[in-house]
This record gives sequence, structure tokens and C-alpha cells, in this order.
Amino acid sequence: MKVGFIGLGQMGAGMAANLVKAGHDVTVYNRTKNKAGELVKLGAKAANDVAGACKGDFVFTMLSDDRAVEDVVFGENGMLANLPKNAMHISSSTISTALSERLTQAHKKAGQRFIAAPVFGRPDAAAAAKLFVVAAGEPKTVKDAEPLFSAIGQRVFVVSTEPKAANLVKLSGNFLIASVIETLGEAMALVAKGGIDRREYLELLTSSLFNVPVYKNYGGLIVEGKFSPAGFAAPLGQKDIRLTLAAAEALSVPMPVASLLRDRFLALMANGGDKLDWSAIAGLAAKEAGLSKH
Amino acid sequence: MKVGFIGLGQMGAGMAANLVKAGHDVTVYNRTKNKAGELVKLGAKAANDVAGACKGDFVFTMLSDDRAVEDVVFGENGMLANLPKNAMHISSSTISTALSERLTQAHKKAGQRFIAAPVFGRPDAAAAAKLFVVAAGEPKTVKDAEPLFSAIGQRVFVVSTEPKAANLVKLSGNFLIASVIETLGEAMALVAKGGIDRREYLELLTSSLFNVPVYKNYGGLIVEGKFSPAGFAAPLGQKDIRLTLAAAEALSVPMPVASLLRDRFLALMANGGDKLDWSAIAGLAAKEAGLSKH
Amino acid sequence: MKVGFIGLGQMGAGMAANLVKAGHDVTVYNRTKNKAGELVKLGAKAANDVAGACKGDFVFTMLSDDRAVEDVVFGENGMLANLPKNAMHISSSTISTALSERLTQAHKKAGQRFIAAPVFGRPDAAAAAKLFVVAAGEPKTVKDAEPLFSAIGQRVFVVSTEPKAANLVKLSGNFLIASVIETLGEAMALVAKGGIDRREYLELLTSSLFNVPVYKNYGGLIVEGKFSPAGFAAPLGQKDIRLTLAAAEALSVPMPVASLLRDRFLALMANGGDKLDWSAIAGLAAKEAGLSKH
Amino acid sequence: MKVGFIGLGQMGAGMAANLVKAGHDVTVYNRTKNKAGELVKLGAKAANDVAGACKGDFVFTMLSDDRAVEDVVFGENGMLANLPKNAMHISSSTISTALSERLTQAHKKAGQRFIAAPVFGRPDAAAAAKLFVVAAGEPKTVKDAEPLFSAIGQRVFVVSTEPKAANLVKLSGNFLIASVIETLGEAMALVAKGGIDRREYLELLTSSLFNVPVYKNYGGLIVEGKFSPAGFAAPLGQKDIRLTLAAAEALSVPMPVASLLRDRFLALMANGGDKLDWSAIAGLAAKEAGLSKH
Repeated sequence: MKVGFIGLGQMGAGMAANLVKAGHDVTVYNRTKNKAGELVKLGAKAANDVAGACKGDFVFTMLSDDRAVEDVVFGENGMLANLPKNAMHISSSTISTALSERLTQAHKKAGQRFIAAPVFGRPDAAAAAKLFVVAAGEPKTVKDAEPLFSAIGQRVFVVSTEPKAANLVKLSGNFLIASVIETLGEAMALVAKGGIDRREYLELLTSSLFNVPVYKNYGGLIVEGKFSPAGFAAPLGQKDIRLTLAAAEALSVPMPVASLLRDRFLALMANGGDKLDWSAIAGLAAKEAGLSKH
Repeated sequence: MKVGFIGLGQMGAGMAANLVKAGHDVTVYNRTKNKAGELVKLGAKAANDVAGACKGDFVFTMLSDDRAVEDVVFGENGMLANLPKNAMHISSSTISTALSERLTQAHKKAGQRFIAAPVFGRPDAAAAAKLFVVAAGEPKTVKDAEPLFSAIGQRVFVVSTEPKAANLVKLSGNFLIASVIETLGEAMALVAKGGIDRREYLELLTSSLFNVPVYKNYGGLIVEGKFSPAGFAAPLGQKDIRLTLAAAEALSVPMPVASLLRDRFLALMANGGDKLDWSAIAGLAAKEAGLSKH
Repeated sequence: MKVGFIGLGQMGAGMAANLVKAGHDVTVYNRTKNKAGELVKLGAKAANDVAGACKGDFVFTMLSDDRAVEDVVFGENGMLANLPKNAMHISSSTISTALSERLTQAHKKAGQRFIAAPVFGRPDAAAAAKLFVVAAGEPKTVKDAEPLFSAIGQRVFVVSTEPKAANLVKLSGNFLIASVIETLGEAMALVAKGGIDRREYLELLTSSLFNVPVYKNYGGLIVEGKFSPAGFAAPLGQKDIRLTLAAAEALSVPMPVASLLRDRFLALMANGGDKLDWSAIAGLAAKEAGLSKH
Repeated sequence: MKVGFIGLGQMGAGMAANLVKAGHDVTVYNRTKNKAGELVKLGAKAANDVAGACKGDFVFTMLSDDRAVEDVVFGENGMLANLPKNAMHISSSTISTALSERLTQAHKKAGQRFIAAPVFGRPDAAAAAKLFVVAAGEPKTVKDAEPLFSAIGQRVFVVSTEPKAANLVKLSGNFLIASVIETLGEAMALVAKGGIDRREYLELLTSSLFNVPVYKNYGGLIVEGKFSPAGFAAPLGQKDIRLTLAAAEALSVPMPVASLLRDRFLALMANGGDKLDWSAIAGLAAKEAGLSKH
């Protein structure tokens, strides 16, 4: 199929590569130009602007935040103006439910199709086509996109006919991951002050109750205190909690652990943590407990 | 080996049965008498009092709280008075680190051996000899008990030479489980108000990021709103958070999520939840969000 | 002086009346027309639209939220288009610091003057000219407005040369008041369950440590459980905490009690409290404690 | 009247002095001996032991915590053994409701009278006989003690016939004061990062909404960052929040702000704050906000 792909960060580059490998005709675009080279070698075409990536039947966007998506879609010479009638915008970025709703309405009005399809997985999962895709939109529309999802992910979950529901699920998932980080941080501060080796403690947890990558990977970072370089930068984590709380406010849902996470990220930002991995919030629990080496 | 077993609740009964099945010579005791019948059929002997269960080289205790352990050990005609020199008390109950330390000193003074060996796993895991055993104490002492652990569990983790460290690990583990319940409760309230089916949402989570029993089992209870009958009663969960916070206070470790859990359990108790499963705290998040059916 | 006054709610009506009584030439405007009658009897003129209230040297706005202020200022035929050069917009509404900054820039660009002058005090204080005015802006500009402040308030505090600083102070003050409500709610739930009469307890507190109206008034509402009719409606309190948190986020300041208040307001909204006084959040503490009559 | 006074710390010394000045026959005792000299000059007698202070009809205790009171009352040669029949123990210490109940029962069994009469006020108020006395116990018993209260305080509040209710009120009051410290700390961190002078901000608050000593005094300490020497040491504040939470747990009352305060005190203790004034918890809010000089 003829596919555009806008946004070639760590995640997007892996996804686009897998679309190429699966035999699709892929045209890629990134605001900063030097990202496309590798993909072109694989067989992708490089567009010079957003419009150039809007020639096919499907265009993915995988961008860092609401503002980047708004620029690409609503900006001058953006997707809204360039996407052909009935072509589909597949939004994989982690964005607010409010923007997702706005995109839904805008594309509808423009005679274009829109679905939200955010993904779970870190860059290595994107590269390995092992993402979990959370899709929502009109059933027929979602169905038409499925061949593309099977190129990038290991499984697709269709959660609703309303696109924004997929964004809500994605946000709630990131909230759950951040909660794992926070609670592991608290538990490790506790056992470490109790004289227990953190590494052995993590091995115990992840060999028994919590035998999954999310506990293993973040637990490992916390044990090492290795919050740099960032796999997923703290400001992005902060953004996701902000969007979770915004969605929760719109729905009148109190989320006290999300509120706590918000405060953790603010403390991290206020104390120079903007370049760290988001798991650095676990270091705050250690610091509050008076543990020096974290 | 000649083993006593005191405390035949859902957990203890399963553990004692597996000791019998493994060929050990087991004498069981429970304060309320009717619990021993099934075990006697399997080949256990029933003692009439604590002293009667203290004839062998090892005595397990698997009791509900600090007070029950204190009664059995320090009470008139208790373990301290009846355990032979060098015989070993294996404490598997979830108790405070303070009591664990007190037991360590008291048994030492009495010329008896003591280790803490709390376990992770619900009653079905106890019955299936699939528990995870967290042991701590003098290395030689722990080693001598290992044949017994292999009869009741799938794996043993030795975490420290100080018994109380094992209790701390157990408490921290229950804190992590309670945190999973709380955060799933918040996330499900959010997505449910966003129009997403909770059952499908749980399926998504546990097929992707959180593919472990603790998320599946508690998630399932939350989806169903099925908090009765209690698999693990709310007052026991409340006790574990209380003991976690007490240990954290002794070590000067702030644990804000544990504090939040404490408040959840208090609200549950104040509103008639004392017979419910501890996962009922997730129902409070739903209630606060105005979701009627939870 | 020739003064316009836009926004004749409970607060604005009292302020405008005092301006008239002080001898100023006041033209009032309110979106819904029936509010001006009483003021006209006192000697005010009534304008038919925003433009009509922009004829003088000073125009107060006292509106419910950011959106209302945006409509009046930036809307078609709004203040920005109608205020004469060098005339002054005095913004007394409780608005976001972000909007205050935007107003500062917009008026500057339009050759108009702008200061923020939010007030502390309930409607009775507004009627009695007993408000506390928190003003910020260019010193000369603030000074020119002072005769007007002495007509409406008992004291003026000039806090900064940047208008938005006054808004920040106002928001922080409302945060402190909401905190008083929350903590009184918790304390009263505690002593009430301990068998102490809440009314006598409040009398004790406010005759000793907390001998100020804010504790007396809100304490009285909590004791009575009298949250309706609303003196200051819960959605407005929720808005102020939202704006406090937004300002705190922009400045990277964690405010855990503000986060808690946010969750309280969400729970109140989710459970039908949108018509109640904001002090109804204290009822949630009582409810969580299982106290039926609140 | 013939009065014993046990506990001559900053508070107790002032109270005892005022009893002497009011013409009572006062015998004082303190575990460390050098505290009595000043009082003896005023006309008090010094006892050599607890028993020596138990000769009269009334004995005050004003001690630092539960353990000190337990030692004095239940210890060998303590009050329980030495107080004459019908003599009255007036407990002014800030202790747990559980200990207050235990004292009530023990004195009753011993044929002695008991009331709780904790006080609000700092050492200067104790010296100036300006304390607020919160009394509870049998009405006749409380009445008999009133002449003594008028010597030490400006007002007496009788809150219940059960002594422990007075202790609960005292604890709840200290919770409210600690809440003021916390919320002022958050508000000041916010406005300080917003460029507002903290001193002027405090002047504004305490000239308008919060015109009471508790806001002025603690606000002043926060503005100065002057947490040493301690007027009321952080470990005592921590103890009071611990006892508040213990009472709240016994009554099943969630108190989320108290939980937050608990975590603040733990962070303070873990980071070397044990010699500071309890208002130092406000410094944590500033530190989390990245403000260096606090």
C-alpha cells in the first residue's frame, strides 16, 4: 500500500522501517532532514515537506506532543490541506484526548478518514515490529489499516469506535508504567535502608510476582541509578501524566496516584532532571529517604 | 524430618499438607480444633496444644498477625518454653519487623534457632507447593531448613542473615501488590468513564505490558466488582500496609503511595468493607469517580 | 473619575456600588441585562454593550473565569477594540497568570494601560467596601488607580510591577483558604468520631488559635453541613485550584496539598456537587470517615 | 491548694511558676535535677523523686511523650503507687488517646482521680499564663481543678467527660498548625518562584485573611528560613502527627493531609533535620521547587 510516514524519532524510524520491509510503498518526512537517510537505503522515499508525504492512501504521524501534531495537521500546507479525500490519517503519537477529538472532527469535515493508533513498546520493540497497537475509530476504517499494523506490531487491540478512546488507553497505560516506577522506587528505598541488596531484591521480585519486562527494565534502571541517557525523557513522561490528568479532569475522575506522579515530575524538573529518563522520579524517593547515592 | 506446624488457615493448611506429602513427620496444631482433620487423613498427627507441636526439630508458624504469634511464642506454655534446645522456629507469618527482631533475640537467649521465611502466593499456590519463600537468618540455619522449603515452594530467596529482613521484603511485596490494585482501580475508573469496556481493557493490559497473574487476578476482581468472598481480607491488607509504614517510619523512609493506601483502607473500613477482599480499595476510586456499580 | 465596570455578579455589583457612592461617574455593563437596575438607582449609567462601558479612563472587569474575560476583551467589539489610548483596564477577576500576561501584552500593543487588581473578600465585604485589593502593574499606573481602590477596599497591597504576580497571589490565597476547608474537614471528622461536639470544637479553635473569619465562617458551614446555597460555588473553587496548579506547573513547583484539593473537587463534581459551596469538599472527609450526616 | 508538678521543661517550668505566683503550695520534680532552682527561688519546694511530688491533692504532669508519662506513672515508685486516694492526676502532656484511656482506668482502679488537660500555647504563653487549657474528665473532677487552670491559662475549654477526648482535641489542633506550616510552605514556594517577595507576601496574608499569631509566627520562620534553634523540635511535631494518625486509625478516619505531613517529617528526619524546628517541613516544599536558599 502507498503510505506516508511523518515523524522519524526513535519510535517512528523503527515503525517506518518495518512498513518498508513489509513491502509497502513508503514516503517519509521529518522536520529535521537528516533522519531519512537510513530509511531511504531500505527503499523508502523521502519527502521535502508534509505535503510530499500526503500522496498515498495512508499517512502515519508519530510525533512528540500535541503541538507537533497540530503544526503538521493544521499548519500552513499541512495534512488537512493536502491529504486526498478518503485518505486516512493514522495518529500514533501520544496526544491529548482533546486533540484527538479535534482531529476526528477536522478530518471528517475535510472528507478524510482518521483513526488513532498509539502504540506500547520502547524503541527496541518498534525496531523489532513487536509493538502493541491500540486502535480506535470507525470499524471499517480501522479494518482497512490492519495490514499496516501487522507490519509494525505483534498485536492490535481495537478499543472503540471513537479515536480518542485509544489515546485514553495509551495515556492510562503510561500512567500505570509511571506508577510501577514510583512504587518500585519507594519499595527499593525501604529495603535498601533495611540493609537488603537492591539487585537481589529486584531479582526476587521479577522472578516471582512481577516477571515482566516493565518491572525488570525499570527496576534495573532504578537499581543502577542509571537515569541517563534517557530512553524516554522525563519531560515526555511529565507530559503524559499531564494529559492523563487533563483527560481525568474532563471526565471528573480523581486519580490520586497520578497527582502524586505529577508532583514528582515537577520536583524532578525543578531540580535539573529535564535530561534524565523518566524513571529518575524513583531517585526522588531514595533522596527523600536520605540515600545519598541516588 | 520431624516438623511441627502451628496455624492451619488457608495458607498454613496447604503448606502443612505438602510437608506431609513430601514424607516429613508432621504434627499440626491450630487454636480452633476442627482444622486438623483433613491433614490427619493425609498422615499428620494432631497436637492438643502448642507444646504438643514443639517436639521436633523444626516448627513452622503461619498465623494471622503479630498478636497471634506473640501468644503462641511468648504465651503461657508457648513455644519459647517448649521448643527443645537447637530446635528451629520457622516464622512464615507476615509480621512486623519489630516482632521479628524480638523473636530473634528471645529464641537466641533460649538456645533455640530462629529464621523468618514468609511466602508469596495465594492459597491455591500454597496448595500446589508453588509458593515463593523469602528466607533470612543465620546461613547454616537457613540451609538446614531448605529441604522443608522445597516441599512447600517453587523457589527460595535468601535475602539476609537477619531474619527481620525477610519480613521487610514480604511487607514491601504486599505494598507493591496493593499499589497494583490501587493504580488499576484508578486507571479503570478513568477508561470506564471514557466509554471503554473494562474487561477488554484488562485483556489488553494483561496481554501486553502486564502479562502476570497479579494484574490478571486483581484486575479480574476489579472488573467484576467481585470483592466478596474475600481471598485476602481487607483488614489483613490494612495490617500489611500498617506494618510497611511502621517499618518505613523506623527507617525514616517516606512512602507516599503507602500513605495513600493507608487512607484507602481506612475509608473502606469506615464504610463497612471489613469483610471484603482487599482489592475492594479499587472500588473506592470508582465510587469517587461517580461510577455507581462499584 | 469616569469609570466603566463590566461584570455585575455578587462581587462586582458591590464594588460598582461603592464606586458610585464614592462619587465616581460609573457606567456599568453585564451580559445579562437585569443586573444593572439597582446600580442605576444609585446613580450609575447602564451600557448596552462592552463598548458602551469603555468610554472613560478606567474600566474594571470582574468576571467569572478566563473565558469570560477573553470574550469581553478579545471578542468582537470588545475592550481591546474600544478602550481609548492610555485608558486603563483594571482586571479584578480571578484568572490564570497566563491570561494576565496575555492581557498585559495585548493592551500594551494597543496603547492601553493594564493592571491586575484581584481582591480578597466575600460578597458582604464587597458590599461594605472592606475588600483587600492585591494590585500589580507599572507603578505609575497602579498609583493612578488608587483612588478607585480606596472606594472599594480597606487596604491595597501592591505586590509587583508585573500584573500576573497579583493573580498569582490571589490564586495562592484561594489555595490557602481551600486548605483551611480541607484540614478543618479532616480534623472535624476525627473529633466527631471521637465523640466531641463539632460546634464546641469550632468554638474552641476559633476562640484560641484560629480567631479569624476564614476559620469561623467555613468552620460554621462545615459544622452545619450547610453547603447550599453556595456563597462561592464549587466549580469556581475547582477552577482556582486548577489555575493554581497551572501556575505551579509553569514555575515547576510541586504543591501536594493543592493536588489533593484537585482530587477532592473532582470527587465532588463526579458525585453531584456542582451546585454546592466549595466548602462541601469538607463533607468528603466526613463521608470517607463513615459519618452519615454530611 | 497543695499541688505537685512533674516535668519542668520550657512549658512545665512556666506553668509551675504561675501556680506558685497564684499562691498555691507547689512541690516540683524533674528527672534531671537542675531544673528546679528558679522555681524554688519563687517559693516552690523541690522533691527528690516522683513520690515526693505526690503528697498533695493535685499533681500535674507535663512530659515530652507517652514513654515519659508511663515511666512516671507506672514505673517503680511512680504516681500510681504514691498518689493518695482521691488525689488528682492532671495530665497536661500531649500523649496518645490510648495512653490517656489507660491512665483513666488505672487511676480509677487505684481510687485516684484523673483528668486530661493539655494546653495550646508556646513557652512564652506558658510563662505569661496565657495558655488555652483543654480539659476533659468527670465534671466534678474538672471543676475541682479549675482554680489551678485559671492560674496557668487565659481560658479553659471543657470538651468531654472522657479524658482522652481532650488529648484528641490537642492532637487535632497540632495537626491543624502543622497543616498551616505545610500550606504556607507550598504557597511561599509558589509566589517566590513567581518573583514575589516572601516577606511582603506574608505581611499581606497576615494583614488580611490570616491575621493570627500562628500564621504570623510560622510564616515569619519560613520567610527567614530560620528553623534553628527549635522552638518546638521536629521530632515532637512528628510524634504529634504519629499520634494523630494513630487516633485516626483507631476511629477509622482517613486524613490525607496528616498522611502527607507524616511523609514530610520522615523526609526531614532522613535528611538531618532532627534538631530543627518543626516548621522546617516548609523548607522541603521550597527544596522540591528548586529554591536553593531554604
